[in-house]
Amino acid sequence: MLNKIEIVKPNEIEKRSFEIITEELEGKTFPEYEDLVVKRVIHTTADFDYVDNLCFSEDSAKIAIEALRNGASIITDTNMAASGINKKRLEALGGTVNCFMAHEDVAKEAEKRQVTRAAVSMERGSQLKGKIIFAIGNAPTALIRLYELINEGIVKPELIIGVPVGFVNVVESKELIMSTEIPYIVSKGRKGGSTVAAAICNALIYQADKIR
Amino acid sequence: MLNKIEIVKPNEIEKRSFEIITEELEGKTFPEYEDLVVKRVIHTTADFDYVDNLCFSEDSAKIAIEALRNGASIITDTNMAASGINKKRLEALGGTVNCFMAHEDVAKEAEKRQVTRAAVSMERGSQLKGKIIFAIGNAPTALIRLYELINEGIVKPELIIGVPVGFVNVVESKELIMSTEIPYIVSKGRKGGSTVAAAICNALIYQADKIR
Repeated sequence: MLNKIEIVKPNEIEKRSFEIITEELEGKTFPEYEDLVVKRVIHTTADFDYVDNLCFSEDSAKIAIEALRNGASIITDTNMAASGINKKRLEALGGTVNCFMAHEDVAKEAEKRQVTRAAVSMERGSQLKGKIIFAIGNAPTALIRLYELINEGIVKPELIIGVPVGFVNVVESKELIMSTEIPYIVSKGRKGGSTVAAAICNALIYQADKIR
Repeated sequence: MLNKIEIVKPNEIEKRSFEIITEELEGKTFPEYEDLVVKRVIHTTADFDYVDNLCFSEDSAKIAIEALRNGASIITDTNMAASGINKKRLEALGGTVNCFMAHEDVAKEAEKRQVTRAAVSMERGSQLKGKIIFAIGNAPTALIRLYELINEGIVKPELIIGVPVGFVNVVESKELIMSTEIPYIVSKGRKGGSTVAAAICNALIYQADKIR
């Protein structure tokens, strides 16, 4: 049974995975800076739907990489996404990862106002100083609140990664973000998730780190 | 733009999502105990492929729920999966979540032996006392090492959740696990991930907690 296993050294598994992905893309190419984002998302999901789903506003990947090189921090809407982001590499660039979802006062305020914790978390995140990237892998209500905060002039992030997953207001919340002037990377449709959000962050961080 | 948004109260979003999933399954049903597992995975991924991908060995969901009611602990192969499991509800049942991936001595030993950290983590996990469920959402090498440890009689888990994602040995590692006598829940093929592993754990925990 074990003889079906391909022998690949631990530090070469990822490289081999990216080779297989590139092969199966059969010559399809993506713009510079976006290429690694798309491939890392496929690597994380084994889902080639993202070839068509992932939408980049003009130069958004390049703009985000530049922001990360200049110490931008990341705000997520789940501790899962936060946990998947390479914090060591991000901190080497001067940024931090922040998630307010599990803060007790966020839960209390959300309960009192009858909004989601994700919405309150976005308000907290908007108060952070410095360059900010929002990476939303779970809650469409986070994107909806961000849309409002942007329109009210309260926050102007460098990038919004809008990849919540699910069935209630997910498609619509992504469309809202794509209607703003803020650079975005969005997975059109219902698909996405915390692992996708983390994969996009890491693809940007690794590129920023490389050209540092 | 905002008028496209369906107004759903925060505590009803999940309920509404499950209603939509059930509708779109168009009358398709699953065995007791498995139903919530399949639906929670679809809820987490927005991917109906899991209707066909998810394989349960005989009574595996029921066996796992019983083990959780008796205080079984969960071992994951990523901190992301660990972070997604409802620890409060699991601890109420008497179990804990464990992940050895970020332990410094695991990294050192893996480097020295030229194996993956995931493989060493499975060895560490096998030494835990009491009932154990392995939830593998990332590393096929974890499943391969588990297969060996089972065959060597070193570990006999209550359940293996085998849902690593990717391109190198992922399909094969799942087949290995399905060839053992250990109860399993496996996503056949390349798909899976840490969010899928956590969703399966939570679907089992919630059912165990309900009939406590």
